[in-house]
This record gives sequence, C-alpha cells and structure tokens, in this order.
Amino acid sequence: MSVVQNKQGLDAPLAFLGTIIHHLSPKQIEIIPKGLLIVGVNGKIAVVEKDVADDKVDSLLSQHGLSRHSPTFTVLERGEFLIPGFIDTHNHAPQWTQRGLGRGKLIMEWLNKTTFPHEAKFQDPAYARKTYASCVDGFLKQGVTTAAYYGSLHGEATKILAEICVQKGQRALVGKCNMNREAPDYYVDKSAAESIAVTEDFIAYTRQLDPTQELVTPILTPRFAVACDHDVLTGLGKLAEKNPDLPIQTHFNETLQEMEITKKLYPEFDSEADLYEHFGLLNDRSILAHCIYMDDYDMRRLKELDCGVAHCPISNTTSGVFGVAPVREYLNQDIKVGLGTDSGGGFSSSIIDCMRQAFAVSKARQLDHLQDKPLHFTEMLYLATLGGARVCSLDHKIGNFLVGKEFDALEIHTVGDDAGIITLVEDEDTTEDILEKFVMSGDDRNVAKVFVKGRSVKKSK
Amino acid sequence: MSVVQNKQGLDAPLAFLGTIIHHLSPKQIEIIPKGLLIVGVNGKIAVVEKDVADDKVDSLLSQHGLSRHSPTFTVLERGEFLIPGFIDTHNHAPQWTQRGLGRGKLIMEWLNKTTFPHEAKFQDPAYARKTYASCVDGFLKQGVTTAAYYGSLHGEATKILAEICVQKGQRALVGKCNMNREAPDYYVDKSAAESIAVTEDFIAYTRQLDPTQELVTPILTPRFAVACDHDVLTGLGKLAEKNPDLPIQTHFNETLQEMEITKKLYPEFDSEADLYEHFGLLNDRSILAHCIYMDDYDMRRLKELDCGVAHCPISNTTSGVFGVAPVREYLNQDIKVGLGTDSGGGFSSSIIDCMRQAFAVSKARQLDHLQDKPLHFTEMLYLATLGGARVCSLDHKIGNFLVGKEFDALEIHTVGDDAGIITLVEDEDTTEDILEKFVMSGDDRNVAKVFVKGRSVKKSK
Repeated sequence: MSVVQNKQGLDAPLAFLGTIIHHLSPKQIEIIPKGLLIVGVNGKIAVVEKDVADDKVDSLLSQHGLSRHSPTFTVLERGEFLIPGFIDTHNHAPQWTQRGLGRGKLIMEWLNKTTFPHEAKFQDPAYARKTYASCVDGFLKQGVTTAAYYGSLHGEATKILAEICVQKGQRALVGKCNMNREAPDYYVDKSAAESIAVTEDFIAYTRQLDPTQELVTPILTPRFAVACDHDVLTGLGKLAEKNPDLPIQTHFNETLQEMEITKKLYPEFDSEADLYEHFGLLNDRSILAHCIYMDDYDMRRLKELDCGVAHCPISNTTSGVFGVAPVREYLNQDIKVGLGTDSGGGFSSSIIDCMRQAFAVSKARQLDHLQDKPLHFTEMLYLATLGGARVCSLDHKIGNFLVGKEFDALEIHTVGDDAGIITLVEDEDTTEDILEKFVMSGDDRNVAKVFVKGRSVKKSK
Repeated sequence: MSVVQNKQGLDAPLAFLGTIIHHLSPKQIEIIPKGLLIVGVNGKIAVVEKDVADDKVDSLLSQHGLSRHSPTFTVLERGEFLIPGFIDTHNHAPQWTQRGLGRGKLIMEWLNKTTFPHEAKFQDPAYARKTYASCVDGFLKQGVTTAAYYGSLHGEATKILAEICVQKGQRALVGKCNMNREAPDYYVDKSAAESIAVTEDFIAYTRQLDPTQELVTPILTPRFAVACDHDVLTGLGKLAEKNPDLPIQTHFNETLQEMEITKKLYPEFDSEADLYEHFGLLNDRSILAHCIYMDDYDMRRLKELDCGVAHCPISNTTSGVFGVAPVREYLNQDIKVGLGTDSGGGFSSSIIDCMRQAFAVSKARQLDHLQDKPLHFTEMLYLATLGGARVCSLDHKIGNFLVGKEFDALEIHTVGDDAGIITLVEDEDTTEDILEKFVMSGDDRNVAKVFVKGRSVKKSK
C-alpha cells in the first residue's frame, strides 16, 4: 500500500434534509430543524442552508447535480438527525481486546500485570492485523470518525494500524509508543536510539502511505516520562522540532503514583509541565491525557502553551484512584478539552458512555468546588465533537458543519427497530429532548450511518 | 385474565452442560467449569453436578427423560456461561420512556417538571398498555428476570403492568404508587382514603391474577414521606400489618433536599428510620432505595430491622447531587443490598451498567473512607443477583442455582456475532477473565437467552 484509496473522492455528492446539530463554539450549539446540507464529491461541505423552503431545496440540489430522487439524497425523519463525528482523543489501540480487565489494580501494577503482557502480543504482525481490523471497525461502528491512537512499541504493528485506518477510512493520529524503561524485558524499547529510529521509520512510512495526511497523521507518542529516559525525550523533542506538522501525545498528571515516580526519575523538574516543556514536547500540538491533579501553575502553563486535554472520565473513575478532572475550569479558561475513551484503561469503547461519565465526574467535582457547574448535555456533545477536533488540531478540517470543512458526521436514529431498547422518543419530545435522550441513553445502535470525508464507513451489522 | 399462563410448567426439562457461575453467599462465588444443570418441568432446578464425567452426564440426562440429542439440552462452549438472572430492586416502570431527560435538575424540580407530567400520561390505559409492554420486553431483553416496580398512581395502569409481567413471564413486585401531596393537581391521589382504597383494590386484583404469587407480588409503595401524609402512611402501615406476605418499598435518605423537606413535614421524627418504623413500614420486607446519607443510627436500625437497600449508583451520580452510598459498609455489616437501575432517574435501564457504576461509586467512596475497599467484580455480580434476591425477600426461590430453587438464569455469550463490539475474548483468557470482561464491558447483546422459572422469555431481536 502506498497511497490513500478513493483519492478521487465520492461517486456523487450527498445531500441531507432535516435536523442538523453542531457546535459553533464551546458555548454555542446550533440546532437547525429544517436544514439542507450538501457534500461535494471532494468530501467537503458545500452547502448548509437553514429553514430552507421547498423550492430552494430543489434548486440547490439541482445546482449540485442532485434531485429528490437521487440515491444519495436523504430525508431525515422525526427522531433522526446529523451530528459531527465523534473524536476519541485518547485511545490505546492494542488494548482493544483487554477492555474490562484488571480494574482493581493501581497504574503500575495494571501496566505490568495486565497491559504489557497483552501489548507484547503485537510483536506478531498477523495478530496485529486481525486485532487492529476489529478495533478500527469497532470504533467506526460506534461513530468514532477520528481517533488519537497509541500503538504498541512495535514499528511494524503500528504501520499496520495506520494502513488499516486508511483502508477502512478512519481519520486517525497514529503513534508508535516510546518506552525504554520501567517496563519488563520482553516489552521495552531496546535502547533510546532504537526507540527513536523506529519512530522515524514509522513517520516516514506513514508520510508515504498518506502523503497529504488526508486521513492518517503520525503522532509522537512518549508513553509517559516514567517510561522514557532523557535520551528518548530529547530525541522525540528533536523530531517535534524537525516536523512541525506532527502532533504529540502523552499522559499528564494522571495519578498520584505516576506523579511521584516521575518526580523521583526527574528530580530536576518541579512539575510535569516543566518537564515536557524542557524537552520541547509541550506546545499547541500536544494532547495531554487525563490532567487530573492540576495546580494553578499547571493550569496556567497549559493555557499559555495552548495544549489540549484528553478528558477520560471512564478510566479516571474506575482504574487506580477515583480521579476528578477540573473540566469546568478547562472550559471556563477556554483550555482545549475533548473526550477520550482511554480504551482499554477505560472499560468502554464508546464516546457516548464517555459523555455520560464526564457528566457524572462534573457532578462529583461540584461536591468540593461548588462554583463548578456540572456539564450540560450540549457541552458533553461539544467535548465529543468540536472540543476533540480542537484538541487534535483538526478543527480547521472537522468538528462541525461549517461550509468548506470535511464531512465527518453521524446519522443518528432514535426511533425504529435499530434503536432497540435504547433511546425512546415520545410524541411530545422536542428536538432538544430527543438530543438529550440520545446523549444520556443512546448507544451505537442509534448510530445508523457514519461518514468520514463523505465516505460511508460503518459496516452493516 | 385471571390466572398465570403456563401454570402446568415446561413442555420438557432443560439441561445445560458447561460453565455455571453463581454466588453461595456475598463472599463466596462458585465457578463450575464443567457443570451439568437440569431444570424440571416445574421450572425448578433438579440437578447441579460439578466436574461431571461423560457417562454421568448421559445417565443424569436419561434419568430426566433427556439425551444429548434433546432440543432442550444445551452445551455451553468456551466464552458461554450461565449466571442467575439480574434483579432490579428499584425501577419506576412509567419512567421507561423518559430515561435521560432532566439530568441537570434537583429532585423536586425534576419530579415536578420532568417526571410528574410524564407519569400522568398513564391515566390512559391504552398508553399504559403500549408503554409497559415495551418496558417489560426491554428489561427482559437485558436480563432483568425480577423487577421491583413502582407504578404510577393509577390503579388501572398498575393492574395492566401486573398483567403484562404475567403475560411476558417476568417475575415482579408491582406497586401502585401512593402520593397525596407535594405534587401537582393533575397528578396526585385525590385523598388519603382514595389512595388506600385504590391500593387495596390493586392488591386484591393482583392476588386474583396470580394467586400463588408465582410471578407477581403486589408491593406497598409509598413514593416517599414527602408525598404521603400521616393518613396515607397510617393506612399503608395497616395494610402491611394485615398482609404480612407483602413487601414494601420507598425512597430513603436519598438527597439532602428530600431529607430537609421530610424533616419539615414530619418534625416529630429525628430520622427517616424512626418515621417509617413508626408507621409500621420498616421491617424485613422493606426495600429502601438509595440510602446514601446514613449516620450510625440509621445503619444500626437498618441492620436491626433487617431492611434491604436498593443501591442505585447511576441515578445517584447523575441526578441531583453526586451521592455515594456506603456499599462496602452494607456488605461488611451484612445489611441486605442489591442493585437498582432507578430507571428513569437512572439514565440506563441496564443492570450491567449499574454493576460498573457501583464500582465507580465504591472507588469514589474510598477517597474519604480509605478503609472501604472498592468492590471486586465478583461482588458486583453478587449485588446484581443473590444480593437483589435477598433485598426482595425472594432468596428462598431465586438468586443462585441451588437445587430446589426456580431457574431464573441468563445464558451469556461473549463470543460470536451477537457479542458484537462488546466483550472480546482472547485465547489466553481464563474463565475469571471472561467473567470480568463481561461484567466490565458487556451489554444486552451478550445476554443470549433469559429464563424465568425455566421459561425462555427474551424475544429474539
């Protein structure tokens, strides 16, 4: 494989008539009851018209070579609507099949006993291909149109993950995981030099695979400072400098145990902010997972450096110690923040589950921070869409339905057989009610169709 | 309708060969790798044999008129196992279709703005029949073999709910909800006398519908002291005395707002324990929902009076104020405790979701009660099964697979198409790993079959 498939674009434009919901900013949701959205064959949004009159529909369709009888024209009925695709800002692809295991353990024990033995299996390319295919299909099925993936430490397996994202049409940031210490002999980078060399090779391969970063972008992925010595962080910092288009991801102030070990291993730094900044890894391209134990200094540096926060409420509340990230404060200060499944530290691979647990965490936060209002359900949707796009530095391309952006979207059905036992709509429900019900009680069975750059990527059951 | 259908029992005995998992006590889970379980035509468990040799299988099957070729003989393959049916100890049936709505509101506002207008619709028997059919099907599909249902205040709708449970084969405690004050004019019992009369009529009807309480038992259901004046509680206390077979359910120390209003309305009582006991409503038949804000006195009285606790972690963490029930303490003191979806105060109708949120809550509890160890996943399963049976005073009949008990069970499949994206089993996973993965990442698609008293009650999709 060398270049992205379907580079020529779609066979025909797409058009949707009905309810369209997206965010214009963290505080501004737009619910368009009778909207017309047209996607060009280049996968970009060509038209978004509000409250569109019937004759206007006809003329706009016609201008794009479509009619009401075109197979790619969709009328969204009551209980059906479009939202932007979900963005999973923190996801360990090799942990896909270990979800749910080892919940009682603290982080270092969980890594050594549950996770590392599992990730080590990606040494085998056949296993990697099978498992990553299941993983990418599984996330697409659930509406994750963009994922920021940590791979395993293996170069080859991580190339396979990038290939599969391209093949299956998922937008992704994919990183070879750097970790050359504090890990067992059977699962550790052999040296700092090797760790960096494999990373460079992976970057080169991925640039060839998808030269314009149409779908897949390599991402620098130091697992965390505990697992990376000075040489690895220095090497990655140099790569970050040399490749100013590359995003960077790591774990940040996740648990007290991890923070304590980091202090011991890097006594010269007062904070993880100083540490990662020193190595050139803290900037507007950084995606920092968790960010739970934050003092004023940490908050200020994240804001000043324009870092993004991957809020992972499911793993935060069920692995290690119950952790409550200050999400209201991130929103108040307009620090970039989105949601991460943290699959498999998070037991669920669903961003919808994450939205709900983010709400629960925001209520827990209020217990000792009375001024921090819990999240509104529209804010949960913001975090899952536009918030995540900003965290991944992709908001110029995706995250909402502005004309010119690429069409990454979910067609949500809250009625009909597929909706099953999940979201139940009553006659008197307003569109806001239906959206709230979907956010609070929906699952992947409500995600009827999934589009990435206009391509339909959800396999039927 | 007057008596339970299928009274004659099953057409043929059932038999299962494979992994059988159940609890013998709160601390004792039994995982039988090669078990044989036979259910008689009376729906009761006739045989449970462990590590059964092949010839023994043949002879036991033969003794019950079965062979390996019988259509009711099931071999459970790797990744498949039997567990006892889930017991939902707290469920508002009329809120089935409002799940997910009104999450930002405190309890009294949520009742008045979201819930009461919705429950009032059950005035219409046609609406009640349609909605309760969906509700009972929905819970059965998710493996809830027993539910403790609050109905609406309407006698007729609540009779319909009892009928539907019988028709569809769900074991249930069904209660006409008593509430003659602190509710809007359009949705309130007209008087204490009417509230009690409708309750008596409902009890009589249900006794005729299912004379032996084979499946459905009426339950006394004062909504909570806020909504019930002295006369209603006095009347219900008399009914409790006159009908010593009837269980009782109410809300208990759920929110600070509710507790404060209760104090104002009943200033003569120092605690809700004293209040409900005074009216003869606190005893070993009582199912108390929530029990979050508990002092030493409350704990002692619950233990002394042998009351049961319906722990509802999903509503507790997402409605009103984030509440953390002391579940570890209930288990330590062997106070009866099970799980409740609290659907629709809880956004999810899944006991599997409840198990996971109970875990999260137990981790939150540890933050300021270091000695309170979080729940183990086997304890979550205990709460969902035998724990719930004890809370509902049904542990003499159901809750585990002891010979002589009725066969309320779930056949769980963690592999195959139906398992979907959910629980993923790896070659090296032990049975414990598979169980943990199911508890932490499964959903109703893993619940392949559902049995109540031996009858298969899950409709195919």
